[in-house]
Amino acid sequence: MKKQNRKSFISTIAFTFGGIALHATAPEKMNNKQLIHHVFFWLKNPGSNADLEKLLEGLRTLAKIETVKNIYIGVPADTQKRSVVESSYAASELLFFDDLAGQKTYQDHPIHLNFIKNCSHLWDKVVVYDVMGV
Amino acid sequence: MKKQNRKSFISTIAFTFGGIALHATAPEKMNNKQLIHHVFFWLKNPGSNADLEKLLEGLRTLAKIETVKNIYIGVPADTQKRSVVESSYAASELLFFDDLAGQKTYQDHPIHLNFIKNCSHLWDKVVVYDVMGV
Repeated sequence: MKKQNRKSFISTIAFTFGGIALHATAPEKMNNKQLIHHVFFWLKNPGSNADLEKLLEGLRTLAKIETVKNIYIGVPADTQKRSVVESSYAASELLFFDDLAGQKTYQDHPIHLNFIKNCSHLWDKVVVYDVMGV
Repeated sequence: MKKQNRKSFISTIAFTFGGIALHATAPEKMNNKQLIHHVFFWLKNPGSNADLEKLLEGLRTLAKIETVKNIYIGVPADTQKRSVVESSYAASELLFFDDLAGQKTYQDHPIHLNFIKNCSHLWDKVVVYDVMGV
């Protein structure tokens, strides 16, 4: 292998391992110190697909807020029904922030306030869990 | 740039973008189709740091289960107290799976069953949310 090629090869390997470290199958998958903001929504009209779609569309706009590091929008999964599983909600919004300040920026951000203005008439109840990684 | 070097360079760029796609700041941070399993625990002795540490230690063992793609262990974050924020729980376990089958493997896995055997005496209540990304 020529010197220049070896250098490129090493860079490639480094990037590969960089990728693995982010989504690892080893102890690296333990992720610490992020702030997790998980919100569950119950609709006023639980049977309305149109209302659910409007809510999901609104939730997707939150991805544009710069302090939102990762966003996962979802609905109840078809896992086994058990007494401990809460599956009566309509939609779930899971956001990752670097820190408390990032979450505060999100709370006050025009895109978030606009989402509340446009969508809050759709929901009957909201439950929020804020988790700090340890 | 020689042909071989160009190829290596392109590979490097591809890996770089691969990395960015995992933890992106653009629309790529919208993450779909993963199964999210979020469990909240309330302790029998909410004031016991020793019990909390035992529970957190037990939760960390779950990272070893091969179908657990990402794991985030945490405690209530010090965000603003609001009526919609549920912060009375003691610990949070957030797991990512590729699909329903991955979650089922986890439920039946000896490491998970061992965690329940060793730690279930610590908790008074558990609430589980299973979310499918859309």
